[in-house]
Amino acid sequence: MSEVFVIAQGGGPTAVINQTIAGAALEARRRFPGSRVLGARFGIRGVRDNDFVDLSAMTEAEILRIGATPGAALGSTRDKPDGDYCGLIVDGLRRASATAFIYIGGNDTAGTQQILAEADDRIAFIHAPKTIDNDLVGNDHTPGFISAAWFVASAFRSIDLDVRAMPGIYVGIVMGRHAGFLTASGATWRRDESDGPHILCLPEHPFSLDGFLAAIDETRSRFGRCVVAMSEGVADAEGRPLVESLLGERAERDAHGNLRLGGGDLGVAMQEAIARAFPKVRARVDTFGYLPRGFATMIAEADSREAFEAGAFAVAIVRDGAASVALGHDGEKTVFERVPLADVAGKTRLMPDEFSEPERSSLSAGGRAYFSRLLPAPPEIAPPLV
Amino acid sequence: MSEVFVIAQGGGPTAVINQTIAGAALEARRRFPGSRVLGARFGIRGVRDNDFVDLSAMTEAEILRIGATPGAALGSTRDKPDGDYCGLIVDGLRRASATAFIYIGGNDTAGTQQILAEADDRIAFIHAPKTIDNDLVGNDHTPGFISAAWFVASAFRSIDLDVRAMPGIYVGIVMGRHAGFLTASGATWRRDESDGPHILCLPEHPFSLDGFLAAIDETRSRFGRCVVAMSEGVADAEGRPLVESLLGERAERDAHGNLRLGGGDLGVAMQEAIARAFPKVRARVDTFGYLPRGFATMIAEADSREAFEAGAFAVAIVRDGAASVALGHDGEKTVFERVPLADVAGKTRLMPDEFSEPERSSLSAGGRAYFSRLLPAPPEIAPPLV
Repeated sequence: MSEVFVIAQGGGPTAVINQTIAGAALEARRRFPGSRVLGARFGIRGVRDNDFVDLSAMTEAEILRIGATPGAALGSTRDKPDGDYCGLIVDGLRRASATAFIYIGGNDTAGTQQILAEADDRIAFIHAPKTIDNDLVGNDHTPGFISAAWFVASAFRSIDLDVRAMPGIYVGIVMGRHAGFLTASGATWRRDESDGPHILCLPEHPFSLDGFLAAIDETRSRFGRCVVAMSEGVADAEGRPLVESLLGERAERDAHGNLRLGGGDLGVAMQEAIARAFPKVRARVDTFGYLPRGFATMIAEADSREAFEAGAFAVAIVRDGAASVALGHDGEKTVFERVPLADVAGKTRLMPDEFSEPERSSLSAGGRAYFSRLLPAPPEIAPPLV
Repeated sequence: MSEVFVIAQGGGPTAVINQTIAGAALEARRRFPGSRVLGARFGIRGVRDNDFVDLSAMTEAEILRIGATPGAALGSTRDKPDGDYCGLIVDGLRRASATAFIYIGGNDTAGTQQILAEADDRIAFIHAPKTIDNDLVGNDHTPGFISAAWFVASAFRSIDLDVRAMPGIYVGIVMGRHAGFLTASGATWRRDESDGPHILCLPEHPFSLDGFLAAIDETRSRFGRCVVAMSEGVADAEGRPLVESLLGERAERDAHGNLRLGGGDLGVAMQEAIARAFPKVRARVDTFGYLPRGFATMIAEADSREAFEAGAFAVAIVRDGAASVALGHDGEKTVFERVPLADVAGKTRLMPDEFSEPERSSLSAGGRAYFSRLLPAPPEIAPPLV
């Protein structure tokens, strides 16, 4: 039987998600000569609608060039299919004579694969990991995270130098609804406690506005300035998102009634709260938004390579049936493992408690070691003169 | 007479402003053996308050390392001195036995030098150019601009790939109160009109909300998505800033009553306006804020080199009296020129009309050629699949 791989991308784009396509397409060519690889446009929609790009028809150079391009080259989707939609996807896969479906994405994507695997046991449903949130259970880290974290670490190193020159309060808001890894990575390159970010606000730690403003006050009295790295998903002890508790009725909701976390609302609410507490202090809140997740000039080499290998590994395990590809770490290097879809699907890995200091506003030595192991070396900077 | 150089930084930090300090300090050492170079902390405040770093006491390696660090290593200020304050600065310079005062900054900084030069004709008041806004009269471009523009071009290339994968409307708001160079640089790497940013909103061109929303609608009907690069200083035909016309009474003002342009207010107002016009469309507005102006991992080599040379040139012309250093272009390379302070002081160079297309929402071939000449080569990306 000739293999037919269908491959699709789900959720937010990253700097390296296309490397996973490239790795799968080239490994299929190598391991299964004569196999076909069909890329579905806009995720499962393309499978449902029979809308494919024939990656088998491309040269190796073309595929490598797709791999080196950030974004999601085939297009992506946030569709979470219900039973009927899953039926249409399975129909689409059968129509394409697919022997395997490789779906690249996060825990929702793994969940979709789990449902599909129950509907058809002749097609191999493989989940390949991808998320800048780094929140997949069973993974040491995830493709896409390293590049995004590199951007965030670089941003906070840069902004701390900026705010040091013109002292004030700065809050940078970073994507992350449940897991604080990406925000916390902003503190990787702190040399000592005078370097920012001085305060980390993560979704894992209940937020209190009074405690936060007191911490800013204390930091300013020690260092003359205060730089904060804040996750957009920060919530209070009752789990109420900060943007909601600050804005109340003014908080924006999307068509599904879900609170909008990004897009500046939290930024403006935070700006107002800081201006009230520190009325004469220079203060600025920036929302990094999409910038960290696929920055064309900051693609980490290790991230590229691992994303490529994750795609190749997905093809390598295709005859063993439905599974998720996981990135482990053996103490020296990244290792690829085959884990059950159920281990990953719908679950969220939070940042471990031991990654942050007890007062929880900075990284522990262990946390810093974890991020330092993943990220490229920091740009060298001079000791401060002011 | 032994030369004593006082050097200071004014206005917003950049990726390369410290190279100008390094260039001046090392050129002073080379050209005037035995001279002293004193760095004033926090700009003219340090001169007034006798708060100096002795750069003469540092090794060449230490000075080069300061140069390679983004931010403003000596600290900066936005103080615009009045007559009394200028008197205190001149007193401070005399107290330090200064023979020259090199002040690195934009048109306000040149203006300060012009006032000081009238108060004391024995000290050489030299303005060294620095601004990410690229808005200094008499300059082809300014140190700090290239690195910031590189960030913005990279950001829009990246975001266009992101939005292509998950179509919708995206607006990125970029610093720039009067001059649109930095925002316009976001379009440098467009390959054709399907690439974003599809619309440029610059301070030089009167903004109409209706026209803007119609242009988004047209772009979406052609390409399925729309990416906009918007300057924070965009204003309507009466010169009223967009943030004010959108927010009215809600617009924030600083302690001087000046309208706040950054910090997310315009972003939220724009988000609301787009949501009203396109209620079911995925839309996102990000404010880049401080990120482009001193990003530690994106310092353009040409920018570094020119900023260093601008500092060295300031020292080279010190015996010719008060002047501003300008960066010209002789058709092949950047050339350094000595121009009167009055040519630069308090004036603003806007982006030339011929840099944009008549309908003014995209770069002309000439505009693209200008930015392409300055910026590093774009990261290679694959042709689109969706």
